Amino acid sequence: MGIRLRALRTVHMLHRQGRLAVLALCCLLLVATAALAQTDPLPSWNEGPARQAILAFVQATTDAANPGYVPPEARIATFDQDGTTWVEQPMYTPLLYCLARLRALAEEKPELADAEPFKSVLSGSMEHLADLPINDIVKFYTATMTGMTVEALGGQVRQWLATARDARWRRPYTELVYQPMLEVMQFLRAHGYKTYFVTGGGQGFLRAYAEKVYGVPPEQVVGAMNATTFSYDANGKPVLTEAPRLLLNTVGPGKPEGIQLMIGRRPQAAFGNSDGDKEMLEYVQAGGGTRLMMLVHHDDAAREYAYGAQSRVGTFPDSLMAEAAQRGWVVISMQKDWKRIFSWE
Amino acid sequence: MGIRLRALRTVHMLHRQGRLAVLALCCLLLVATAALAQTDPLPSWNEGPARQAILAFVQATTDAANPGYVPPEARIATFDQDGTTWVEQPMYTPLLYCLARLRALAEEKPELADAEPFKSVLSGSMEHLADLPINDIVKFYTATMTGMTVEALGGQVRQWLATARDARWRRPYTELVYQPMLEVMQFLRAHGYKTYFVTGGGQGFLRAYAEKVYGVPPEQVVGAMNATTFSYDANGKPVLTEAPRLLLNTVGPGKPEGIQLMIGRRPQAAFGNSDGDKEMLEYVQAGGGTRLMMLVHHDDAAREYAYGAQSRVGTFPDSLMAEAAQRGWVVISMQKDWKRIFSWE
Repeated sequence: MGIRLRALRTVHMLHRQGRLAVLALCCLLLVATAALAQTDPLPSWNEGPARQAILAFVQATTDAANPGYVPPEARIATFDQDGTTWVEQPMYTPLLYCLARLRALAEEKPELADAEPFKSVLSGSMEHLADLPINDIVKFYTATMTGMTVEALGGQVRQWLATARDARWRRPYTELVYQPMLEVMQFLRAHGYKTYFVTGGGQGFLRAYAEKVYGVPPEQVVGAMNATTFSYDANGKPVLTEAPRLLLNTVGPGKPEGIQLMIGRRPQAAFGNSDGDKEMLEYVQAGGGTRLMMLVHHDDAAREYAYGAQSRVGTFPDSLMAEAAQRGWVVISMQKDWKRIFSWE
Repeated sequence: MGIRLRALRTVHMLHRQGRLAVLALCCLLLVATAALAQTDPLPSWNEGPARQAILAFVQATTDAANPGYVPPEARIATFDQDGTTWVEQPMYTPLLYCLARLRALAEEKPELADAEPFKSVLSGSMEHLADLPINDIVKFYTATMTGMTVEALGGQVRQWLATARDARWRRPYTELVYQPMLEVMQFLRAHGYKTYFVTGGGQGFLRAYAEKVYGVPPEQVVGAMNATTFSYDANGKPVLTEAPRLLLNTVGPGKPEGIQLMIGRRPQAAFGNSDGDKEMLEYVQAGGGTRLMMLVHHDDAAREYAYGAQSRVGTFPDSLMAEAAQRGWVVISMQKDWKRIFSWE
């Protein structure tokens, strides 16, 4: 067999192998697709109206033949964090972080511990934090989360999260994330939705771990927005420093305002758990068409907490329950709707 | 042939047809991929260092074997608008819009025309606008772009764009977009980059047409940021109103500050054309690794404009040219690097 012929045969074999590889790939894809279709996307959810609402919403908005179809670019879902995707009792974790930072700073600068509101914060009970007026909360944030570069803030938050433990479960706060909500986020993303956080906590705090813990990138974190200041360090290198100026308080009406600022269009779905999420859900629903508004209701004292109308943290007043019923918002019962709450259960 | 047998044969045929369809699809994909690889992604660019810099940057940052590789989630490129992606002479288009609105408003409310700075703005030359101090610019913005719902603002902008014509080419402003820059944006997106605008013009102004004209969605428009106010209209429907309060002036140092607020990580590439983009390019470069910093230089009086150091609009001082040379930023010569400037040429 001449060289030319051998070369031709080799080319022919490679072609055949190429075709076979393509065929094998196609088979693999078909099998994978079939397997995916059979896998329950919400394994931690019990059968019930909440689970059904999520499945029906995704089905309606992603099926081009459905009148509720939503084009991919408009598929946006927003999530509150504290009490909606992770535990917020006995106190919001972002405030626990500020408290820990304040204690550390007070050791370096004892004069800080004598000035108000820090004196009350350091001597009072942890629950007292929730009663602080917004001006004092801002002072508290300013003292503990500004003055450093944006990279340093992220590093401080991650360092704290690596060692701090929750008092009840003795676990890192980032393990107190609700597994059913992670599944909803993943399910939505698998169907072309962009998942955003819209939290009352600091934007820089949540950004420090949102990508790792929730798969939500920094550009999809709407939170209490601090101004930063551009300047040059001693070596002439440009730096951004967290400035003591709050641009937007993303609680209540500040949630739709933050959505407008960072997203610029109305989400198709919104998830919250308290009075502070009311305006976000109203705003989403007012867009008309197929929208999904859901509220996590903490009614499971055994596995997590049961609270609502009387709680200082994550207040869920009777008026909110009445509004949900009137407007057709779906209330998630942790007790009935969630098969398990944490990934490690 | 029995019914059962016929049914089996039909199933078999459908299977065969399905396999054939899959094979056909694969062939199509292979052909399309090959065709794509042979198509020049930057057909409006002449051979030269600018074109080469773009191609080399994309090659290095998207090839997993290259030390300059950038994972998909970090692929972010930011673009100034006025003078970088569309014409800014003889005056920034966002300001021309405000001027047109001010004229219309002055007809309804003659007292507006007598108050400063509006009196000077209405009686002075168009070039005078560029000399206004920032406080007067803010008053000018406030009078013309706030007080309406966010949807009404978008509608007003689109209505103006549909009828307004540039004085030189007699074309809509949205046709004065630079074709070579559109190609860069598309080329970057085709390689997994998210393209953002970071403009000194109003965020609401650019959002009104960014998706249609540039393929940039509202959530990727960083611009002069107005506060909005959440409230309920007479029918109890939630509305967001443009408030007379500027949260962030996105010029100069305000560009990296706006990037931090809305993106939360450092872009890999940045494109500008004037002194107002300097800090953005410095900030991008300070991230180290493979970064691309480019400046459009307007040196083509015949096909567009030639301006720079002496211009009130889009100032490109000698110090910026020196900094570009020193830092290795790539200066794009419109005259030499661009084969054509507009899509309709």
